[in-house]
Amino acid sequence: MQVNGKPYRTVALRDGERRVLQIIDQRRLPHAFITEELHTVDEVIIAIRDMHVRGAPAIGVTAAYGVYLAALHSVFNHASETVESAAVRLKQARPTAVNLEWAVDKVLQAIAELPTPFEQAKHALEVANQIAEQDVANCIRVGQHGLALLESIWSRKRAGEPLNIMTHCNAGWLACVDWGTATAPIYMAHEQGLPLHVWVSETRPRNQGSQLTAWELHQQGVPHTVIVDSAAAAVMQQGKVDLVIVGSDRTTRCGDVANKIGTYLKALAAESHGIPFYVALPSSTIDWTLRSGSQIPIEERSDTELRSAHGSVHGRTEVVQVMTDLSPIYNPAFDVTPSALVTGLITERGVCDASEAGLLKLYPEHANG
Amino acid sequence: MQVNGKPYRTVALRDGERRVLQIIDQRRLPHAFITEELHTVDEVIIAIRDMHVRGAPAIGVTAAYGVYLAALHSVFNHASETVESAAVRLKQARPTAVNLEWAVDKVLQAIAELPTPFEQAKHALEVANQIAEQDVANCIRVGQHGLALLESIWSRKRAGEPLNIMTHCNAGWLACVDWGTATAPIYMAHEQGLPLHVWVSETRPRNQGSQLTAWELHQQGVPHTVIVDSAAAAVMQQGKVDLVIVGSDRTTRCGDVANKIGTYLKALAAESHGIPFYVALPSSTIDWTLRSGSQIPIEERSDTELRSAHGSVHGRTEVVQVMTDLSPIYNPAFDVTPSALVTGLITERGVCDASEAGLLKLYPEHANG
Repeated sequence: MQVNGKPYRTVALRDGERRVLQIIDQRRLPHAFITEELHTVDEVIIAIRDMHVRGAPAIGVTAAYGVYLAALHSVFNHASETVESAAVRLKQARPTAVNLEWAVDKVLQAIAELPTPFEQAKHALEVANQIAEQDVANCIRVGQHGLALLESIWSRKRAGEPLNIMTHCNAGWLACVDWGTATAPIYMAHEQGLPLHVWVSETRPRNQGSQLTAWELHQQGVPHTVIVDSAAAAVMQQGKVDLVIVGSDRTTRCGDVANKIGTYLKALAAESHGIPFYVALPSSTIDWTLRSGSQIPIEERSDTELRSAHGSVHGRTEVVQVMTDLSPIYNPAFDVTPSALVTGLITERGVCDASEAGLLKLYPEHANG
Repeated sequence: MQVNGKPYRTVALRDGERRVLQIIDQRRLPHAFITEELHTVDEVIIAIRDMHVRGAPAIGVTAAYGVYLAALHSVFNHASETVESAAVRLKQARPTAVNLEWAVDKVLQAIAELPTPFEQAKHALEVANQIAEQDVANCIRVGQHGLALLESIWSRKRAGEPLNIMTHCNAGWLACVDWGTATAPIYMAHEQGLPLHVWVSETRPRNQGSQLTAWELHQQGVPHTVIVDSAAAAVMQQGKVDLVIVGSDRTTRCGDVANKIGTYLKALAAESHGIPFYVALPSSTIDWTLRSGSQIPIEERSDTELRSAHGSVHGRTEVVQVMTDLSPIYNPAFDVTPSALVTGLITERGVCDASEAGLLKLYPEHANG
């Protein structure tokens, strides 16, 4: 997508070199657009754990390149550990997004039988590149299927009225390699001239909505308005939301959806107002081994995310304490929306019911677990 | 209630003097406990408009003293306007809380027929004092009725387990003169040794939950945990909420409740989880002239409440910019919870159904409008 008119990807090997992974440091947005170079698997782990890069698909792709960097360093005997051991640490960087485990295992399996570290590194790079390209292709297909859905809902509105879409957190291109999941249909509809407006919820405590999604939409010229998370139901009550589209960090084979904390609350509100609630996701986000969302591990993050606020003062970044240290905090990063509240899943193979039957119709190869 | 072990009221004439109104400047909490002195009706208007003092009952009492200060200054010919004109400006300071209008009109009506400015000022002071004392008495009665409710719900829990109460924003003593509305039953139950735990939602954008309610509960020693607003449904899904109690800024005669933005979302989530949802309010918060919540004017506040964050850095207060100026913001301060989602209203005369019939059983004097 575009940043100040120039095309970017969130995660990519640096032009000309193949030893440096370049990511957009999302902690600095929207105040500063800064790219960061990662040279080792340890730097990759820190970037994932401390959320320089976040969003399930982007984490997966970054981790795939992390395995490549581990393999590369073992070629030159720089590594103090095996690729397998580095991979275990990579997978532990964050617990909820299944793409992380999926991508790491995919690279590991592909190189397991290769005889030399050199061949392993070479092939790890190929597989990581494939995963990245696949993610872009999947987001484009999610976008196309979602676009058809948006056009259909818009066609039932009064002529000339914009389509009002609500989203949560950032399931945009910053969360993927390009296009995004929930935003891909939005960007495509906007390019085609379909009049639309996006409600962006702030997404406490890290403000991915007001700091990342709002910035993305502004960069692409998509009309939008930021609200506090608490205002979601009030806006629905006013009749100003035609549908909700969010992303997912892990979806079970039965269609339960783990996503950013607050997604479940929006799903409940959408249900109460008869508003369709869609989840956009590449199939790399589906955990075929789990049936119920209650089995998904939910990451708890540091209480400092609530106690302090990062912001800009005269161009420099400052952290201010907004709460005292006197009160305990519970800070789950995700919640689980039961499949019954999900109108449909928008995948790269089409839109389906949020159910095992629905998913297996599109992904019959997973019928046996 | 107690601040660092010493009893305080949020709004009171300063000891020994009757020309200075002392309030707690709530913008500085929890980082600093600072009282502010108000000498004129203009200072009172600024304190209400800019939320040095907030919460429907506290606003009402402060405004009543504001009318008194206007009357006092007209005695000494300091005033450039009539008391009536000052009262109009007072009522316009904030639109949603009906207590403001109610209290101002109550003082105005009481002094309207008095012949001299001196008598007007003297009586305005008496009426303002009565309104303040009445607010304390009403909160105590709300607390007693709510306490019976808490004991009843707790008695149905497994022995030894604490009662888990969720609240939103600050309907505590800081929002009143003393005791609070939603917190009065909590403080009384805690004093009686009933084991309880309060879920405090942050309450964006002004953080009255994490900055005021958490501070209050800590000062009184009540166990509590702060969550982001978005986590309310996840905590309910985990079975960790026995009931919700919130306050109200204006309640219609049919039981629709305007309260801090996000209240409606919590009510929807409580309904979905079969969790009782109570609203605690003195009857000064009831607007007997309105039937439907859709008739309540909803205040929209400045977008700077979302764009920037106030906090403490090394003891001094700093404001940091958390969002750019590039994205539009919609910032309604309140939402309306329909009566159907309200399990009951806890008033100073008892607990009733959130309906016209329920309210009129307790307040038959309003049967004819």
